Amino acid sequence: MQKLQIFDSTLRDGAQGANISFSVDDKIKIIETLDKLGVDFIEAGNPYSNPAEMQFFQRVSGMKLEHAAIVAFGSTRRKGVSAEEDANLASLIAANTEYVAIFGKSHIRHATDVLKATPEENIAMIGESVRFLSARGKKVIFDAEHFFDGYKTDPAYAMQALSAASEAGAYCLCLCDTNGGIFPDEAYEITKKVTDAFPDTVVAIHCHNDGGLAVADSIEAVKAGARQVQGTFLGFGERCGNTNLATVICNLQLKRGYECIPAANMPRIYESAMAIAETANTAIPQNQPYVGMNAFAHKAGMHADGVLKYSSSFEHVDPEAIGNKRKFLLSEISGKSAIYEKLKKYFPSLDKNGKEMGEIVSALKERALSGYQYEAAEASFVLLVEKILGKYKSSFDLINYKIINEQPAIEGKVASAIVKIRVRGEAKITASDGEGPVHAMDLALRSALADFYPAIAGVSLIDYKVRVLDSDKATAAKVRVLITSADRTDSWTTVGVSEDIIEASWIALTDSIDYALLRRER
Amino acid sequence: MQKLQIFDSTLRDGAQGANISFSVDDKIKIIETLDKLGVDFIEAGNPYSNPAEMQFFQRVSGMKLEHAAIVAFGSTRRKGVSAEEDANLASLIAANTEYVAIFGKSHIRHATDVLKATPEENIAMIGESVRFLSARGKKVIFDAEHFFDGYKTDPAYAMQALSAASEAGAYCLCLCDTNGGIFPDEAYEITKKVTDAFPDTVVAIHCHNDGGLAVADSIEAVKAGARQVQGTFLGFGERCGNTNLATVICNLQLKRGYECIPAANMPRIYESAMAIAETANTAIPQNQPYVGMNAFAHKAGMHADGVLKYSSSFEHVDPEAIGNKRKFLLSEISGKSAIYEKLKKYFPSLDKNGKEMGEIVSALKERALSGYQYEAAEASFVLLVEKILGKYKSSFDLINYKIINEQPAIEGKVASAIVKIRVRGEAKITASDGEGPVHAMDLALRSALADFYPAIAGVSLIDYKVRVLDSDKATAAKVRVLITSADRTDSWTTVGVSEDIIEASWIALTDSIDYALLRRER
Repeated sequence: MQKLQIFDSTLRDGAQGANISFSVDDKIKIIETLDKLGVDFIEAGNPYSNPAEMQFFQRVSGMKLEHAAIVAFGSTRRKGVSAEEDANLASLIAANTEYVAIFGKSHIRHATDVLKATPEENIAMIGESVRFLSARGKKVIFDAEHFFDGYKTDPAYAMQALSAASEAGAYCLCLCDTNGGIFPDEAYEITKKVTDAFPDTVVAIHCHNDGGLAVADSIEAVKAGARQVQGTFLGFGERCGNTNLATVICNLQLKRGYECIPAANMPRIYESAMAIAETANTAIPQNQPYVGMNAFAHKAGMHADGVLKYSSSFEHVDPEAIGNKRKFLLSEISGKSAIYEKLKKYFPSLDKNGKEMGEIVSALKERALSGYQYEAAEASFVLLVEKILGKYKSSFDLINYKIINEQPAIEGKVASAIVKIRVRGEAKITASDGEGPVHAMDLALRSALADFYPAIAGVSLIDYKVRVLDSDKATAAKVRVLITSADRTDSWTTVGVSEDIIEASWIALTDSIDYALLRRER
Repeated sequence: MQKLQIFDSTLRDGAQGANISFSVDDKIKIIETLDKLGVDFIEAGNPYSNPAEMQFFQRVSGMKLEHAAIVAFGSTRRKGVSAEEDANLASLIAANTEYVAIFGKSHIRHATDVLKATPEENIAMIGESVRFLSARGKKVIFDAEHFFDGYKTDPAYAMQALSAASEAGAYCLCLCDTNGGIFPDEAYEITKKVTDAFPDTVVAIHCHNDGGLAVADSIEAVKAGARQVQGTFLGFGERCGNTNLATVICNLQLKRGYECIPAANMPRIYESAMAIAETANTAIPQNQPYVGMNAFAHKAGMHADGVLKYSSSFEHVDPEAIGNKRKFLLSEISGKSAIYEKLKKYFPSLDKNGKEMGEIVSALKERALSGYQYEAAEASFVLLVEKILGKYKSSFDLINYKIINEQPAIEGKVASAIVKIRVRGEAKITASDGEGPVHAMDLALRSALADFYPAIAGVSLIDYKVRVLDSDKATAAKVRVLITSADRTDSWTTVGVSEDIIEASWIALTDSIDYALLRRER
């Protein structure tokens, strides 16, 4: 298998994305995740941009990494100063990494119009900067900014910029499609000119996704001889993002036989994606290739049947190969097959063609109309089916609750809750205050249940999500609340829907507790 | 300009996407939007799937469309019955459209293993079905399911399936990458074989995005002679979605000179995308090429400066060409330039290099740390700057509020609110009940303000969103509330953050009212 280098810039170019920002701990976690997966290079930031970044490099140089090399990012020297005088180059030396990446202009008009340098001066800036760093033991990755547009404008000049870097000892020439506009055929043709001209240097491809083509552009560049693919693991980045490395790795390693990461690590792709998304506090789009929650989810009855018969029908790769899973979505148009597949592990005696399955299918449709979705809330779905099958036993009944929220806050608490429930014929009333109304309610309910069900103490709420369904109804809109709970061995998600966020939370919360008790019984 | 046909399947294949479902009114709205934009074909559903779908086709046949032809979708006849006996083909006739699309097998193993038909029988099913429909005046689009995988497995059989359709009079041969796994070079090579073999028939390309390559595959197929591109306008579809037509249209029309839609309609791409997303009750991913909210958004200080100097630096096309806009994001790493660009229309006398700008930049950083984001909430940002500049005059002060939420509900209302405020030295207390706590609070506050600010009656809340920030803290997590308000001429968005959803809503709500009054003053 031919080895391809994978260069991740989540921490540098990725941090340019809207809604993306990393704390120092976040950065460390992401480096650990990428290293464990077996990525070759991790671009960790620009040590010159501020003192905190430089401190970060000091911390990183103490990390023991198994696989990845850390890269410090900067630029060629400024116009009109020598490399020795340039503070940015000095900071790249001080960052203490084996590899550094510096960007420079390879587009004639950017050199003259943006940088206001002569063509010759720009070439000198590239050569001297690379030479300065190489002479000090650095392996230099030269990022040729706007390379593809530059090549289309003046190919000789664009190639001259690469030659200047190469002759000065650059380890790698990185071809950047800085504005994200090239097409796959252009990526192939122009990269081919470069790999033909520099057969002994690593050529890298660095794309942006403004045309929705970054993954395809990278694949075509690899076909043309590029040996390093740059991007960000989940496609984070300015505007439409950078090349999504998870997609590139899966495509090239599973389908074209390149070794992007050690083969044994491929099943960790999914968990690595999840870990990075969680650290970045973003959700992976459900339809993201390979690692999206629905990348292997089947909704239509016919397709779900087809997958069970012949999996390659609707699956281009085996989801398990990258650690993802096949899913059958529960929706108003789910066929019986998909629903039955989902339920049979909970209800082994359920008859696929029986009357009860029919009732389940119609209940699902009816609930979908009022805003319920069970795709992500399997625990609530199991409880619903228990009710339909007449197997459900309620663990408590609500008599009433009252939640009070007020400003100014009393002793720092804005919310208080009174909850009265009946358990095994016995009424129990408790109160609690909290950070907000749902928090107060949650605490009061748990306290009321504690005497009857001590096991509840081992269950904690680990995730709480709110989605406004018909947001154009503004504050009178319906909301869907999803609550994820966990004990030591498992986690489960429940759902509640109401115009009243408190009621929606109450429904999800009580389902969550019901499900916990049901599991114990089993 | 060479004409390319655009075939949208948002209503059929798009409806297979997770979380996507359309009411009859939704479907009508989407047809109107696509027709007005100038799309050639709209696949509206499968009339055989249920009586409601058939009724829908009756309603659609009464619509006056300017540009688009409606297509009814079904399959080739079943195995073992004649075309005349097949109820699905009968329903395609009854749907009363000029164009019909039918899918059939072109992959030998799918014919034999999934369909359990002999290779010959499958070919006969294709030919007879196309002939039956053509003889009754239909223009038939033959969807060759699994065509690319089929071609790779047995090219002669895959071509034989197309020949059967073509000889029977098919108007169009549609090559489907049903599991979404092909690469752009394969799309080119295999499509080229087909366009060479069938030079007089329209060849269509229909891709899925499982490899993140659907747009690139479609572009390469067009290069190989395909004259129709199928997909869904926003990429909706099962698993990772179908080809995103908005991206394909922009790429091919702006950069390769094809006419996909009338040139005069190109600036409507963005609003059409927004309208379809709204109807589907989904948000367009912010980083979606061309039509995403951040597709032309610039965050880094340096890049924002670059764009102002030389727009093609970081913009592959002019955002206005498709009706989108350039944006400068306000974030903790925004450069002064970006922030100043945003503010100068509100505060023309602000000095870019003055002390106040420095204070604004640090306030932004500080607020970002506590969970505020102003990227989508410009109105709150303007109010924050007013406060920093010492220009802010509060329109009222809160004395206290108390919100009560209870179950069982009283006369159907679960929540009631008491709000006491001071306006121009005068205290005013009001109460209201509502569908939920925020609704009750909103009504009580408006009622308290009505006497002082009658203009508030013309302001309505049109959107309410909640995001849980640190959802792992479960019910004690911080939430960010965004409220969008509108009067007859404008709309604006405000933000509030707190562990208490009521307080977060209160902050966003009062900003919204403050901003409305501020606008009137100006």
